[in-house]
Amino acid sequence: MQIYALLPNAEADASWFFQIKGTEMNDNLTPQALRATIRSGEHRGNTSGYCAGHVQCNIVILPADWANDFLRFCQLNPKPCPLLAMSNKPGDVSLPPLGDIDIRSDVPSYRVFRDGQLRDEIPDISGLWRKDLVTFALGCSFSFEEALLADELEVRNVTEGANVPMYRTNLDCTSAGPYAGKMVVSMRPFKAADAIRAVQICTRFPSVHGAPIHLGDPSLIGIDNLAQPDYGDAVSVLEEEIPVFWACGVTPQVALETAKPPFAITHSPGCMLVTDLRNSQLAVM
Amino acid sequence: MQIYALLPNAEADASWFFQIKGTEMNDNLTPQALRATIRSGEHRGNTSGYCAGHVQCNIVILPADWANDFLRFCQLNPKPCPLLAMSNKPGDVSLPPLGDIDIRSDVPSYRVFRDGQLRDEIPDISGLWRKDLVTFALGCSFSFEEALLADELEVRNVTEGANVPMYRTNLDCTSAGPYAGKMVVSMRPFKAADAIRAVQICTRFPSVHGAPIHLGDPSLIGIDNLAQPDYGDAVSVLEEEIPVFWACGVTPQVALETAKPPFAITHSPGCMLVTDLRNSQLAVM
Repeated sequence: MQIYALLPNAEADASWFFQIKGTEMNDNLTPQALRATIRSGEHRGNTSGYCAGHVQCNIVILPADWANDFLRFCQLNPKPCPLLAMSNKPGDVSLPPLGDIDIRSDVPSYRVFRDGQLRDEIPDISGLWRKDLVTFALGCSFSFEEALLADELEVRNVTEGANVPMYRTNLDCTSAGPYAGKMVVSMRPFKAADAIRAVQICTRFPSVHGAPIHLGDPSLIGIDNLAQPDYGDAVSVLEEEIPVFWACGVTPQVALETAKPPFAITHSPGCMLVTDLRNSQLAVM
Repeated sequence: MQIYALLPNAEADASWFFQIKGTEMNDNLTPQALRATIRSGEHRGNTSGYCAGHVQCNIVILPADWANDFLRFCQLNPKPCPLLAMSNKPGDVSLPPLGDIDIRSDVPSYRVFRDGQLRDEIPDISGLWRKDLVTFALGCSFSFEEALLADELEVRNVTEGANVPMYRTNLDCTSAGPYAGKMVVSMRPFKAADAIRAVQICTRFPSVHGAPIHLGDPSLIGIDNLAQPDYGDAVSVLEEEIPVFWACGVTPQVALETAKPPFAITHSPGCMLVTDLRNSQLAVM
């Protein structure tokens, strides 16, 4: 299951929102200030609960000869792989659209993979940097969960302090070169009226998975048992609720599982790239 | 069941769209030209299939002392009672926002009610006009059904050439003076992905019932049997489909049933006010 960790994604830790509502709120730092503490090595842990209102990103770093197909894969599968930014050219460590970033040092913890095998977990990748590396920053569900919570919808994984449950579906992604696989979805249960409201809210955020891709009967998308998610934790589905499914940022991980690039770097689970972008800036209206 | 006919609404005749797709398309007339033929008495029948792309309205005409509460009822219940236009003042026969209209003659057929009892069905109400009458024009589902069809969603009642099925729910409208009652909903079945798309499309059209108010289990809103609609025709709900429910223009009829105004005029079923407004102009984005 090492591959599982290849693209650890934001969905894997929902404690951020829980903390926002609780006593552990850590939003006193600006994204710039937080990244400075990360860059200096002072902050090495989870980014959950930091810089409320700001976009946090999944990171995938690939050699240039593996990057073009991955880019195509993102473009062909925008709901599970919403690309927010990428390197201007191979070797470039900046991501100007997201802030004053040095991708070698501004993520609290990185995972290094070779041929699909996890080999190392380190707080800085300056020593591994290569002139051919291309960085991809993908949107994550934190942004739309924040919008749902702002509208006073109950997000069950937040309420239960759990990781959102995620499932492999029978829905094929559109393949690009070596990248292929089934779509992974996250699930949040709602009463019907709130499910409809959630569709409206998330439609405003196409760059962070957008509207749900399914609701109702899980078996129609190849999910046998909601109580046994493939990733994350099961959450309660109450009477009168229907499960609502979003394309999930674990999907590219499945594609990377198939592709087995010789070298790849990702963020560690929960240790995201915190950007200057505001979640509200991702709203298309 | 005379009261049933008190506010015959657009939903009661879906053949318009069926005809658009078939051979009976009658959209060669402009709304102005069609209203001229109606005003002259030349056209007295259904408006289904005429002036494709243009908004058609439900009409309710009430004495001024019964109008203010009805206006409040519409404002308090905008999803079932989406008010598109009303008289500038009692006795005014024009509706400038909707075109060059004389409401006494521009609807092909009117129904006249006294104390809630249907008393007459006539092609012109000039002889009955009073200085205290107030006209209400309400949006109808034709507009959003057109948008669904334009996106190539299958609208089952259109496919089956049936009237859309409508049901009384257990959802209370907000009452206003004598006007009160349960919400009536129309139902269209979709696969989940299309249901999600339908939410998005209809969200753009708040003035013609807007987004659905429920989807999934009908019993949660007090509907026991989908096969036995209270109004309209039952339609097939196929495997893998979920029923999707919209607030329906028959709702004000239930409110009028409760209120029993001494005098009221409505359009006859399927004989709508055809306006100069384009359906696309109702889109909020």
